[in-house]
Parts: sequence; structure tokens; C-alpha cells
Amino acid sequence: MASMSLTLAVDLGGTHIRTASYNDESITPISRYRTRTNAREPGVFDRLAQAIENVWNDDVTSMGVASPGPLDPYTGTILATPNIPEWRNFPLAQKLSARFGVPVHLDNDANMAGFGEWTFGAGKGHHNLVYLTISTGVGGGVICNDALLQGFHGLATELGHMIIDPDGPPCGCGKNGHVESFSSGTAIARYTTEQIQAGQKTSLQLDGAALTAKQIADSALAGDSLAISAFARAGQYLGIAVANYLAIFDPSIVIFGGGVSQVGDLLFKPFEKSLYEHTFHPHYLDNLVITKAALGDDVGLLGALAWARFKRNNESTRAE
Amino acid sequence: MASMSLTLAVDLGGTHIRTASYNDESITPISRYRTRTNAREPGVFDRLAQAIENVWNDDVTSMGVASPGPLDPYTGTILATPNIPEWRNFPLAQKLSARFGVPVHLDNDANMAGFGEWTFGAGKGHHNLVYLTISTGVGGGVICNDALLQGFHGLATELGHMIIDPDGPPCGCGKNGHVESFSSGTAIARYTTEQIQAGQKTSLQLDGAALTAKQIADSALAGDSLAISAFARAGQYLGIAVANYLAIFDPSIVIFGGGVSQVGDLLFKPFEKSLYEHTFHPHYLDNLVITKAALGDDVGLLGALAWARFKRNNESTRAE
Repeated sequence: MASMSLTLAVDLGGTHIRTASYNDESITPISRYRTRTNAREPGVFDRLAQAIENVWNDDVTSMGVASPGPLDPYTGTILATPNIPEWRNFPLAQKLSARFGVPVHLDNDANMAGFGEWTFGAGKGHHNLVYLTISTGVGGGVICNDALLQGFHGLATELGHMIIDPDGPPCGCGKNGHVESFSSGTAIARYTTEQIQAGQKTSLQLDGAALTAKQIADSALAGDSLAISAFARAGQYLGIAVANYLAIFDPSIVIFGGGVSQVGDLLFKPFEKSLYEHTFHPHYLDNLVITKAALGDDVGLLGALAWARFKRNNESTRAE
Repeated sequence: MASMSLTLAVDLGGTHIRTASYNDESITPISRYRTRTNAREPGVFDRLAQAIENVWNDDVTSMGVASPGPLDPYTGTILATPNIPEWRNFPLAQKLSARFGVPVHLDNDANMAGFGEWTFGAGKGHHNLVYLTISTGVGGGVICNDALLQGFHGLATELGHMIIDPDGPPCGCGKNGHVESFSSGTAIARYTTEQIQAGQKTSLQLDGAALTAKQIADSALAGDSLAISAFARAGQYLGIAVANYLAIFDPSIVIFGGGVSQVGDLLFKPFEKSLYEHTFHPHYLDNLVITKAALGDDVGLLGALAWARFKRNNESTRAE
């Protein structure tokens, strides 16, 4: 009689910790749990361990974790993530593995989301895929030649931190002119705020609380021209960024995830115009698919699930 | 008795056609030949075929070709290369295969050079490699996870055509602000010429003929401050470009080839300063090797040789 084998998936986000356990062959969880991360308060690891306990089952044989980076996926160590100040060179995979007694496979959230979309979502069957998440930041995950691109230190495909204008605005990371400093939700809000402070007319109000990309999107949809131009600018630079990713990776599909990518034409009409204008050679666009992510809020969990299964299959093959 | 099997390699350059034939296991040619391409005059294919005839041997079982791009390596078609105006959608591999009766494997010169350095040169044993050639243009070849990155259309790793400043100077390709428009020999010469025309003091003379990067390097080595600043500027932007390649590919080695990369500290001191300043996270630099190409003028031939052997081994494995 074949023993049952379950996989446990963890999506450790800046706001929420999500956990779920899955039977083999299924992407519908047996059990799932969600709690607040409270990332800036002590005890993140204990909250995480408790969230895992809540979906634990003794048939679990491996665990996958999608975590904020930068991190070292080969050792499972979080280097230093801005969201969780108490973790510096924190051996997360090792600690989870010691506590739960199963192998733990870790990579950053964008890589896991890209791997999830490739395995279960919009990118199934593609051999060269670029996944981009546009939310408060900009992250990327890339499949080249049917393999996740991780790189020598496991730090590959930090696509949001590609410099597209050395004199551009500051990025959350402290450098300047990154894709993230033009096209993230944070960048859209900062640009809009600066324009209001400079006297641009708008229906938006600066009343002490920081503007959000969501508020600006609502104003844009109501016809506010500053709000429209803020998304147009983000889309213009996103087109430059993706033209670069085409020249670099030549993918057959580009997948957009993340909250800001939900705004639709506000961002993507200017994006498309800019992409066509900046693409190095028109042949890159032949049969190229540009599409939205398919896995929704579960993309982190499903990516971690896909990765844990992949690593288990890969390592058992090697051991034979 | 095992039959002998030879590989024929072709390096089709803008200036010279080089051909050579090699025994298995050896990278020392049995015979070699070099002639002028005369790329802008009719008859390039006939000159190429003749150069192959001159090293032909009936034991040749496959042929590798390093050619200027853009090209489709999967069909062996040259799309349109600025150097050879008579070739537009030119089925080079198919025509050579029909004429010589052996499989012909084609990819662009920078990809073949990168593959050559990985197989026989400075990049042996690395799993993630970035090769950059800095000459009249800037080209790239990348190994990810022990495989040449070619992409969906075979157009991946056009690293010289990454946009690093949308308002930057024009590139030879017609777009603006590419790495090539800042850091190639052509860009160094154009910048210097513009500065002289704008009245900058220099020992260099504009006497009708276009300045070359070589002349500017000579002046820089003699202490000319404009010439020094032209290389410093190229190195500064090259540092930005390589910081991007680190964030994107996270290689364990970056290899520089091409004539302009021979100038040494003039370019590479400012490059290093800029690279450290612009690298997204210091961990990318841990144990990173930055080095010169090892294969010299034979890099195209040896890349084509390595590729033809790789394809033969790969395809015979598949056929089994």
C-alpha cells in the first residue's frame, strides 16, 4: 500500500502569513490558514511556526516557502529583508526543518510566483517565461530553458532593481533609477505627491496620510488628469523595462501579477505603446504572449507547493 | 576501427572570414584559412563557401558557424545583419548544409564566443556566466544553469541593446540609450568627436577621417584629459550595465572580450568604481570573477567548434 505523501506550502508575506497542505497531484488544499505577519513586531518565527502547526499533518514529507528576499535559496537563509527587521542572516529553512523534521525548500516570493505560474498557471508549456509582479515594489521570476533562473548566489532576476535611468528617482533599496522607482505602486504615489506639492491641479487631496496607488487609480478612472498621467508615466517606463527583458531573455510569455497590475488600461495602454517603441527588434514580439497572472492570491502558496514537489522529485532522482 | 570524425568551424566576421577543421578532442586545427569578407560587396556566400572548401576534408561530419546577428539559430537564418546588406532572411545554415552535406549549427558571434569561453576558455567549470564583447559594438553571450541562453526566437542576450538611459545617445541600431551607445568603441569615438567640436581642448585632431577608439586610447595613454574622460565615461556606463546583468543573471563570472576591452585600466578602473557603486546588493560580488577572455582571435572559431560538437552530442543522445 502506497503511503500518503503531503506537501506543506508557506507564503510569508509582509502583511499575511498563509499556510496550506496539499495531497500529491492536487492543487486544492486539504487545509489552509491565514494570519497577520505583524512583520515589524518580534516573534515572526513563532507566528510562522504556529501557522504551519495549524495545517500540519504527519503525512507531510516536504515544505516549500515563498519569502521576501533578498535570501540565499541554496542555504535557506534570509539575508536581510526590509519588511522583517528582526531577521538578519536568519537560517529560516534550517530552523523550520529542525522544528518539523522535513526538508524545507525556500526561494523569494517573486521567483516562487513565477515558478507557480509556469507549473500551474498562465505559463504552462512555455520554455522561456518572464513573470513580473507590480505592487508596492516590482519583482521578477524567470524560467530559462525550462529551469528557474536562480544564479550563483541565488540572487538572479531582481528585475525591479534594473537601472533604466541612472539619474532617476530613488528606489526603496536606496539606489536610483530602478524599474521599481518608476513603475511600482510606491513610485506612482510618490510621483503624484510630488506633482501636487509642485502645484499640479488634481482632485486628489494631500491630507497628511500618504496617497496610495489605489486612491490614484480611483481618481484616474474618474478622469483626473494628474492621476492618469501618473499611471501613464509608470507604464511608459514599464515598457522600457520589458523591452530590456525581451532583449535579455527573449521569452515566449510575459506574465503580470501584483495589485498594481490590476488597474488595466490605465497602466497597460501606455505600457504597450512604450514597449513597441523601445523593443530592439520587432521579431521579439512575434507570437509573444503578454498576459495577466492566473493564480490570484494563492500564487505564493502554489509556487511554494510547485517548488517543494519539484525539489523532491529532483532530489530523489539524483539519489537513485 | 573507429572512423575519424572532424568538425569544421566558421567565424564569419565583418572584416574577415575564418575557417578551420578540427579532430575530435582537439582544439588545435588540422588546417585553417582566413580571407577578407568584403561584406558590402556581392558574393559573400561564395567567398564563404570557398573558405570552407579550403579547409574541407571528407571526414567532416558537422559544421559550426559564428555569424553576425540578428539571426534565428533554430532555422539557421540570418534575419538582417547591418554588415552584410545583401543578406535579408538568408537561410545560411540550410544553404551550407545543402552544399556540404553535413549538419550546420549557427548562432551569433557573441553567443558563440561566450559558449567557447565557457567550454574551452576563461569560463570553464562555471554554471552561470556572462560574456561581454566590447568592440565597435557591445555583444553578449550568457550561460544559465549550464546552458546557452538562446530564448524563444533565438534572440536572447542582446546585452548591448539594453536601455540604460532612455534619453541617451543614439545606438547604431537606431534606438537610444543602449549600453552600446555609451560603452562601445563607436560610442567612445562619437563622444570624443562631439566634445572636440564643442571646443574641448585635446591633442587629438579632427582632420576629416573619423576618430577611432584606438587613436583615443593612444592619446589617453599619453595623458590627454579628454581622451581619458571618454574612456572613463564608457567605463562608468559599463559599470551600470554590469550591475544590471548581476541583478538579472547573478553570474559567478563576467568575461570581457573584444578589442576595446584590451585598453585595460583606462576603461576598467572607472568601470569597477561604477560597478561597486551601482550593484544592487554587495552579496552579488562575493567570489564573483571578473576577467578577460582567454581565447583571443580564435574565440569565434572555437565557439563554433564547441557548439557543433555540443549539438552533435546532444542530438545523437536524443536519437538513441
